Amino acid sequence: MASITQAEYDSLISRLAAVEEENAATLLEVDTFFLLWASALIFMMQAGFATLSAGSIRAKNVKNILLKNVLDACVGAIVWYCVGYGLAYDADNGVNGHKAIGFIGSGPTNFALSSVGDHSGQDKGKTWIMWQFQYAFAASAATIVSGAVAERCQLGAYLIYTAVITGLVYPVVVHWVWDPAGFLSAFNSDDSVRIYTGCTDFAGSCVVHMVGGWAALVAAWVLGPRIGRWERPELFEGHSTPLVIIGTFLLWFGWYGFNPGSTLMIHGQANVAARATVTTTLGAAAGGISGLFIKRHLPEWAGGTGLYDIAHTCNSLLAGLVGVTAGCSVIYPWAAIVIGFFAALAYHFASCLMRRLRIDDPLDAFAVHGASGLLGTIMVGVFAVKEYHTAIGVVKPDAGIFMPGTTGEILAAQVVSAIIVIIWVVCCSLILFGTLKALGIFRVPAEYEVAGLDVSKHGGSAYSSEANVALQFSQKV
Amino acid sequence: MASITQAEYDSLISRLAAVEEENAATLLEVDTFFLLWASALIFMMQAGFATLSAGSIRAKNVKNILLKNVLDACVGAIVWYCVGYGLAYDADNGVNGHKAIGFIGSGPTNFALSSVGDHSGQDKGKTWIMWQFQYAFAASAATIVSGAVAERCQLGAYLIYTAVITGLVYPVVVHWVWDPAGFLSAFNSDDSVRIYTGCTDFAGSCVVHMVGGWAALVAAWVLGPRIGRWERPELFEGHSTPLVIIGTFLLWFGWYGFNPGSTLMIHGQANVAARATVTTTLGAAAGGISGLFIKRHLPEWAGGTGLYDIAHTCNSLLAGLVGVTAGCSVIYPWAAIVIGFFAALAYHFASCLMRRLRIDDPLDAFAVHGASGLLGTIMVGVFAVKEYHTAIGVVKPDAGIFMPGTTGEILAAQVVSAIIVIIWVVCCSLILFGTLKALGIFRVPAEYEVAGLDVSKHGGSAYSSEANVALQFSQKV
Amino acid sequence: MASITQAEYDSLISRLAAVEEENAATLLEVDTFFLLWASALIFMMQAGFATLSAGSIRAKNVKNILLKNVLDACVGAIVWYCVGYGLAYDADNGVNGHKAIGFIGSGPTNFALSSVGDHSGQDKGKTWIMWQFQYAFAASAATIVSGAVAERCQLGAYLIYTAVITGLVYPVVVHWVWDPAGFLSAFNSDDSVRIYTGCTDFAGSCVVHMVGGWAALVAAWVLGPRIGRWERPELFEGHSTPLVIIGTFLLWFGWYGFNPGSTLMIHGQANVAARATVTTTLGAAAGGISGLFIKRHLPEWAGGTGLYDIAHTCNSLLAGLVGVTAGCSVIYPWAAIVIGFFAALAYHFASCLMRRLRIDDPLDAFAVHGASGLLGTIMVGVFAVKEYHTAIGVVKPDAGIFMPGTTGEILAAQVVSAIIVIIWVVCCSLILFGTLKALGIFRVPAEYEVAGLDVSKHGGSAYSSEANVALQFSQKV
Repeated sequence: MASITQAEYDSLISRLAAVEEENAATLLEVDTFFLLWASALIFMMQAGFATLSAGSIRAKNVKNILLKNVLDACVGAIVWYCVGYGLAYDADNGVNGHKAIGFIGSGPTNFALSSVGDHSGQDKGKTWIMWQFQYAFAASAATIVSGAVAERCQLGAYLIYTAVITGLVYPVVVHWVWDPAGFLSAFNSDDSVRIYTGCTDFAGSCVVHMVGGWAALVAAWVLGPRIGRWERPELFEGHSTPLVIIGTFLLWFGWYGFNPGSTLMIHGQANVAARATVTTTLGAAAGGISGLFIKRHLPEWAGGTGLYDIAHTCNSLLAGLVGVTAGCSVIYPWAAIVIGFFAALAYHFASCLMRRLRIDDPLDAFAVHGASGLLGTIMVGVFAVKEYHTAIGVVKPDAGIFMPGTTGEILAAQVVSAIIVIIWVVCCSLILFGTLKALGIFRVPAEYEVAGLDVSKHGGSAYSSEANVALQFSQKV
Repeated sequence: MASITQAEYDSLISRLAAVEEENAATLLEVDTFFLLWASALIFMMQAGFATLSAGSIRAKNVKNILLKNVLDACVGAIVWYCVGYGLAYDADNGVNGHKAIGFIGSGPTNFALSSVGDHSGQDKGKTWIMWQFQYAFAASAATIVSGAVAERCQLGAYLIYTAVITGLVYPVVVHWVWDPAGFLSAFNSDDSVRIYTGCTDFAGSCVVHMVGGWAALVAAWVLGPRIGRWERPELFEGHSTPLVIIGTFLLWFGWYGFNPGSTLMIHGQANVAARATVTTTLGAAAGGISGLFIKRHLPEWAGGTGLYDIAHTCNSLLAGLVGVTAGCSVIYPWAAIVIGFFAALAYHFASCLMRRLRIDDPLDAFAVHGASGLLGTIMVGVFAVKEYHTAIGVVKPDAGIFMPGTTGEILAAQVVSAIIVIIWVVCCSLILFGTLKALGIFRVPAEYEVAGLDVSKHGGSAYSSEANVALQFSQKV
Repeated sequence: MASITQAEYDSLISRLAAVEEENAATLLEVDTFFLLWASALIFMMQAGFATLSAGSIRAKNVKNILLKNVLDACVGAIVWYCVGYGLAYDADNGVNGHKAIGFIGSGPTNFALSSVGDHSGQDKGKTWIMWQFQYAFAASAATIVSGAVAERCQLGAYLIYTAVITGLVYPVVVHWVWDPAGFLSAFNSDDSVRIYTGCTDFAGSCVVHMVGGWAALVAAWVLGPRIGRWERPELFEGHSTPLVIIGTFLLWFGWYGFNPGSTLMIHGQANVAARATVTTTLGAAAGGISGLFIKRHLPEWAGGTGLYDIAHTCNSLLAGLVGVTAGCSVIYPWAAIVIGFFAALAYHFASCLMRRLRIDDPLDAFAVHGASGLLGTIMVGVFAVKEYHTAIGVVKPDAGIFMPGTTGEILAAQVVSAIIVIIWVVCCSLILFGTLKALGIFRVPAEYEVAGLDVSKHGGSAYSSEANVALQFSQKV
């Protein structure tokens, strides 16, 4: 038996403290890396939306819609930087004594003035990368609408509504559902504010997709159908299936950042992130397969066509992804398959309904994002697993009404939250798009629309050398 | 000299234990993150296969092949979830006392019933993400075949064979070669079961590419050539080079997850993963450059054309990647260049042979994946470095026959394994595709094929507005 | 009070040592993973350059430019492996007693002989992955030039100059600016060698983009304009906007590896990497929006057209990215917006100047990469934040001349470095391209150029089934 010297003891303690400190730093650093990774993947969804949109419309407006998609990524960044992020989150995290309130973030933050965004690097980049991660989400919400107004919306109006959605409509919903101070948030520990269990919308079926999708519905309705849309529907098919497929795959790819990345960290949440990946895959797969057979085998009065319809299959697949987004981290794999199936159904019937109502939504943005987003939000209240719900850190874990241990509160929270968000988005959108219409700046002149926006506004077709190709071949053949 | 108090000692011990525990958790979490990353990259290969396939065929079947590519990603997920993964791996890892056997996994696992997929999160997501990672591989194996049956295979038959490959043919090979219980596995510690050193197929030249490629050979042979293929070959060129290139680059990109990701972890394997990345790059580069000059400079009787052939260059590049996949982690960089060169040769002559045999494989799926996969599998037995072979954790490290320290056993293991896999795949494929043919559901009617599958089955061309473009230009020019 | 036994003490010490060792390994492993991730993203920029280039030229040369883009990724890898990397960095890190010199790396390293590339794995893959990471950069520098010589450069000449740039011109600049032994490097601790503070070019506005861009200028000038370029400019528009957009988004996506990845590690640099991501986003966004309005609203004499020009917007966005690349880690977010705006201006006027000088640069490679790269390099001297400059580990931190704490030295370092690099690149390029021209192997014969390179050299059009499409439609319509 030997005693150790004071120096030996001190050395032990300081080495241990160094290891502890290094560990703490490493965990934060890996979390930052995790969000760097996820942010890049989600950003790729911008490319997915752009190509999907371009492929789904007529060739004569391709430059126009692609330009819009590039611009909403740009405008979204600037607006999110100056206004949106501050409304969504209390970016100063109370550092300056700012008291967060339940309905809106602390407002345009001094992030814009560079005093937030941690200089010292104490947080190992968390402050910075969170902005980027949330930007990628905001840009997604805004770009969803672009499909609904394709081929007839003025560029100026487009820039205005993108700014309003990214700067006001979307961040307010983010604050409600995702900020711990939000009154719809499942992370809000204030029982007097939180409704029921709070809304569990893990990666944004409600916050991102419903916001984009329901705004798209209003936009399409206010803007009116494309000229000739209901008279000669066969002329309105997408002009390039390869672009549609590239877009679909890029979106699916991006979803592997969107859903698992929504843990916001890998430390302590690796199991959640990995589970969210599996359910994402199965939701997409089930949606796609279901969509194929729905369109092929349903009777004509129910929207079936007897064809293997690739665009419909892709949209069903995306609907599956949208549907599984809210619950990806809290459901069993089999539930992801069930949700994928119902999301495909929701998409199909919403799309049929839109046609019946003569609302022209060229990309089916409402049916894919609005309807399936609603379904996905509610399905959390049906299929959530209690221990998984605990694992994501909500204040009051509950199980979906089909699962053991349910109190039913979670379903109430999901439904009420969805309704509140719909009301907010529809009202904002009516004012926004109504104003644009009243000002006469929403829709392009009819002659421009008929000629195509590319020739009218962008200096010529998106495929300006096809003529050469055609000529070559006429000589060759 | 001072003794420390019991409390000080206890505090030290508990802090140390906390750090140790946290470290163990962190390592697992980072490994999960690593597979999240790699899985997403590999998934992107689905987009690569889709665009490569679409670009390589005629415009009139583009919707059809793209739909098939989307669907095999979907069907693959569901089948892999319900059946395949359980046949490939003993997913319960012996937890339930299940005894793994050498020829097949423990069968449809209770993963489907949600009792596997670790609830508690003790494994930090490893169980979940391994499923996703392996799914991405399985989907690759299945999609390789799609190229060989392009432009004439019925969709129903396509779905059936995709399910059989993903659910039976492929997972059995996975079990043999990659599961530590497999009789061909270099990780099988049971000397009485393992043949020689076991097969070193690090990322799947054999397991993924040979399975896909040899099934493609049988499929193309049973299905027969496209109408007019050998009479007017000039009409069968790919319709879009940009799609081919996008596909090639997406595949190359995905390979940076496919090969380094096959370490399955970054902890303890970072050097291996990094080396695999370098050899992947050099294999691809050598394959591409070699292919360019092979096609340009070989005499006509040896398949040369005197042209700088871009499709051939891309396929050679992919052949380089396929070739280096088995050995990427166990070879020197210069060996990757050598393998890339021989893989390009193997591809070229296999492609020539297929044409001579009048087997119509529109994407050269056999030549790229089957032939170069075989070459790559064998090359491990030639160029493996012993200390690298040790580093990947095989039971009986050996060196390739050109390298110091060889016993020659590894080459025997590679050759025998390749032969066994070929026999298995060819037999299964003959039964599978033969049955589909005998049932008369394999091939579309001739009139559909001539008209094009898009018009016949999918409601119109993949480029349905080209007419508008053409018209625009005829007015403009 | 109790003393602990020697065994207890020894156990404590050895557990602590084990944890310390494991931590050190983990940090290195995570850094390797970080570079695996970043390398893959940067590699995707090859796909971005390829599609952007293809979309920006006429249909008749699409196969040609795509083949060239595939090949420079391949040739770049082999040359970088055999020569370039050794000239850029002292790859043996002094291990073999090799003394680094200020002007060039230690030369073709024994990496090629496999003795570098750490066998033992002591560095956890750092040596291997650094090669891959640097390869991805080198390939970018080389591919920038391809745009400037599009539609008229011989393939052989292309391969030669790619090899020279990747093997000599570029690595020498890398050594000067990025190797700690380089005389322009801000990481060079030898005050007698380093000029002023050394050049801060975090991710390569100067090293990558200026090298590529200024070489492009010389190449375009020596090669001369495409036949008819200035007589009938309307015939020279890009043939496919979707390809341009896919390229732009893939490049933007890749930039999220390019800029944050340039920390070369996540440990200790997570805050820097995250900040670099945010500024990258804002630089791109500001560039894109500025470009839209510049082209739309500037008077005609200043290059305005009154159109919403999508190609110009994309190039401006890329100019914003190029501009922010040098300073991404050392500037405030608002400065990224300012730089994005000025980069768009620099691009616009450089592009106008090229047209006025009748230098035909089909992709505006000089204006985007050369001019905006120069701007970005200099802007570091204007907007760098001193504490951020400290955080990236430079020897002599300074602030930009508009920021508090400046000595002005940094601006001098940036300007002098830029001038030296321009002189080096322009001289090398004049010799290189001048020689190719003098040998008569630089430019394709006029009749090939008129017919299009695809028909002349590559066996037919890149879209060889368009004829079928056209026919289908003429029957349908």
